[in-house]
Amino acid sequence: MIYLDNAATTMRKPQEVIDAVATAMGTLGNAGRGASSSAMGAARTIHECRERVARLLGCPRADHVAFAPNSTAALNCAINGLVGEGDRVVTTVLEHNSVLRPLNRLAAERGVLVEHVGCDEFGRLDMEELERLVVSGTRAVIVTGASNVTGNAVNVARVSRIAHAAGAVCVVDASQSAGIIPIDMVGQGLDVVCFTGHKALMGPQGTGGLAVAEGVDVRPWNVGGTGVHSFDPMQPEDWPTRLEAGTLNGHGLAGLTAGLEFLDANGGVKAMGEHEVAMARRLYEGVSDIEGVAVYGDWGTFSSDESPLRAGVLSLNVGDISSADVSDMLMQGWGIATRPGAHCAPLMHEALGTREQGVVRFSTSWFTTQEEIDMAIEAVREIAQG
Amino acid sequence: MIYLDNAATTMRKPQEVIDAVATAMGTLGNAGRGASSSAMGAARTIHECRERVARLLGCPRADHVAFAPNSTAALNCAINGLVGEGDRVVTTVLEHNSVLRPLNRLAAERGVLVEHVGCDEFGRLDMEELERLVVSGTRAVIVTGASNVTGNAVNVARVSRIAHAAGAVCVVDASQSAGIIPIDMVGQGLDVVCFTGHKALMGPQGTGGLAVAEGVDVRPWNVGGTGVHSFDPMQPEDWPTRLEAGTLNGHGLAGLTAGLEFLDANGGVKAMGEHEVAMARRLYEGVSDIEGVAVYGDWGTFSSDESPLRAGVLSLNVGDISSADVSDMLMQGWGIATRPGAHCAPLMHEALGTREQGVVRFSTSWFTTQEEIDMAIEAVREIAQG
Repeated sequence: MIYLDNAATTMRKPQEVIDAVATAMGTLGNAGRGASSSAMGAARTIHECRERVARLLGCPRADHVAFAPNSTAALNCAINGLVGEGDRVVTTVLEHNSVLRPLNRLAAERGVLVEHVGCDEFGRLDMEELERLVVSGTRAVIVTGASNVTGNAVNVARVSRIAHAAGAVCVVDASQSAGIIPIDMVGQGLDVVCFTGHKALMGPQGTGGLAVAEGVDVRPWNVGGTGVHSFDPMQPEDWPTRLEAGTLNGHGLAGLTAGLEFLDANGGVKAMGEHEVAMARRLYEGVSDIEGVAVYGDWGTFSSDESPLRAGVLSLNVGDISSADVSDMLMQGWGIATRPGAHCAPLMHEALGTREQGVVRFSTSWFTTQEEIDMAIEAVREIAQG
Repeated sequence: MIYLDNAATTMRKPQEVIDAVATAMGTLGNAGRGASSSAMGAARTIHECRERVARLLGCPRADHVAFAPNSTAALNCAINGLVGEGDRVVTTVLEHNSVLRPLNRLAAERGVLVEHVGCDEFGRLDMEELERLVVSGTRAVIVTGASNVTGNAVNVARVSRIAHAAGAVCVVDASQSAGIIPIDMVGQGLDVVCFTGHKALMGPQGTGGLAVAEGVDVRPWNVGGTGVHSFDPMQPEDWPTRLEAGTLNGHGLAGLTAGLEFLDANGGVKAMGEHEVAMARRLYEGVSDIEGVAVYGDWGTFSSDESPLRAGVLSLNVGDISSADVSDMLMQGWGIATRPGAHCAPLMHEALGTREQGVVRFSTSWFTTQEEIDMAIEAVREIAQG
C-alpha cells in the first residue's frame, strides 16, 4: 500500500518509536504515584518528553507543557479554560471541528460571541478581515497553524501581533503544522499551542497536549487525581498538574519522545518538513496540469510569494466525480490510501465550494518516496482520462 | 523488583499485549477517517475492543462503550454529562478525587448539591445513610466499585436499587474493580460504568472509557472532529461518537483488546480476581498479627460475611512511622514497590484516621506470586521489629 493519509495519522512509525513503547510497557509504573523505581522511571520518561516538546515549540518552560490524548482534547481544554461567559472570540473558516465545535457550544450555552474570518477561493486567510474583527476586548484569537484541507500555513506571528494589540491571547491548533513548519512560541508570540503526537511528530496515537506561555491562565478542564495535594478539594493550581488529571499515557509518551528524537536525528523540523512539502509539491506539479483535475489551495502560482509555507497536503477533485469514489478507485486500482470527504472542516468546504463533492486529500510523511508520488500522479491521470 | 503497586498501574503486561500494540503501530491508520484498508483496520480493531469491553461489563450495546484516555477522563465526561445546574448528587467518602473534584467544581460553579455518604472505621459504606440521602429528585448516585485504599467492594447492585427507587442514575467508578470483581450492568442495574485499561484489564496506559446503559443521556464533554457529520455545528448525537471527539488511541486499544483476550484465556474475571484477592489475603494473614502493624479495611474478621468481595489491595501502617518512610524501606531493603500516602482519596483517610500518616498500599496482579507475598510479609515483620 502507498499510504498518503499522513495528515490523519502517520501510519508508518520509526522502529525506534515502536521499540520505545514496547520497552515502556514492560518497565513503567505510574508517574507521580509513589516513589518506587518504576514510578520514578515513568516520571522521568514523561519529564523528558515534556522537555523535548518544549524545545520543539520554543516554550521556555517544560512544566507548561501539559499532555492530553490528542489535539482535540487539548483544544477543548484550552478553549474552555480560556474563554468564559460572554467573551468575544475570533477564529477562522479554515478551522477543524475540534476548534469550531467547542466554540459553537460556548456560543450556544455561555453567550460567547464567535466571529469567523473568511478566506479567498484558494483558502488564503483574509488578514484584513482578521484585523477588523479582532477589536479591543476580544478574549482569544484561535487559528490553525496550517489548514488540514489545503495544507497552507497561516502566518501565526502576524495573527499573534494583531491579537496582542487588542489584548487577546493567541491560540494555535498545530495539529497539521507541528513537526513540519517551525514553531517558536516566544519568537512568534503564541500563547497556547495545541498539538498531537501521532502525525508528523511520529508518536503513537493517544499522545498530544498543549503548551502554554507563562502568565497565560488556562483553567482546568478535566479534574481529578493528581498524585499530589490529595486533600485539596479542587484541582491543584501547579503546572502542569492543573491540566493533567488522571494517569498519563506513559507508554505512549515514551514513544513520542522517541519520535521527537527521530526528528532531531533526521535534521529536525526544517529538514523533515522540507521533504514532506517537496513530496506534496512534486504531486502538485504532476497533477495540476491534468485536464479535469482541480487542485485546491495556494501553491505559489497565484500569490506573490513563490513558496508559501505549508504542510505536506494536496487536495484535489477529478471532474465532478465524488471524492469518495476517486479515493476508492485509488485504493482499489493502485493501493493508494488517501482520504475523501469533508475532513471535519465544514466552513473551509463552503469557502472552496466543495461542500457536496468533498476533496480527495493526499498527505505525505518523512517516509513518502518520489516513486510513490509518481505512482499517485499516474493514478490521478488515469482516473481523469476515464 | 517485587512490584506490588498494581492498583496504580499493572507494570507487568502480558507479552501478547505488548505485541498487539507494536503490531498496531506498524499497521493502523486513523479509525473513521477514510475508507483505506489501514483506516478500516483501525476501525475494526476499535470495534473489537468495544465488543469485548461490552461483554466484560454486561453492557448490551457495544456502541454504548465510549473510549477515553483513563477513568478520570471518563468520570469527567460522565459526571459533567449527567449532572446539571442545581442538581442533587449523592456520592461517598470512599471516592477517589476523580469523582470528588468534578463534583466539588459543580458544587462551586453550578449550584450542585453534593452529599457524601460516610463509612465506619473499617471503611464499610453506611448503606443506611445512603438510603436516607438518596431522596426523590436526586439526579445521580456515584460510587466506587471498590475502594482504592481498603480494596473493599461496594455492593453496587444494592446502591443501584436505592438510586433507581429515587429516580436517580447509578454511576460506578470501576477503576479498581473492573477485571477483578464481576460487573454486570444489566443484572446489577448500573447506568454508567467508568473504567481504565491499564490496571487489572492488563492494557496499556492511555486507554479506558465509559459504558452507558440504553436510555441514559450523557451529554458530550469533549467535542470536535468525529469523521462523520462534518457539517453539523454541534457534536453528533450518535453513539459512541457523541462521547468520542478526536482521534482514538487505536494503538492502545489494540493492546487493551489483547489484555481482555488474556483475561478470557486465563479463566476470566472470576479466576483472575480470585488469584489477585488470594494473594492479598495471604498478605493479610501474614501481617495482621504482627505487633505494631495496623491493617485497614474489612477482611471478613469483623463482618458477618466471611469473605467480603474485594480487590487485591491491602493497606497498612507500621506503628507511627510515616507511610512514605515504610514504602522507602520496602523499596530500598527488599526491592518491593508499594505506594504510600493519601492515594487521592482524602475523605477515606479522614474516615480511617490516616490523614497525616497516609497508608502503605500493597496491590496485587495476576502475575503476583506466593513467594513475592511471603517476601513482603517478612519485610513488614522486620520493619515492625525495628
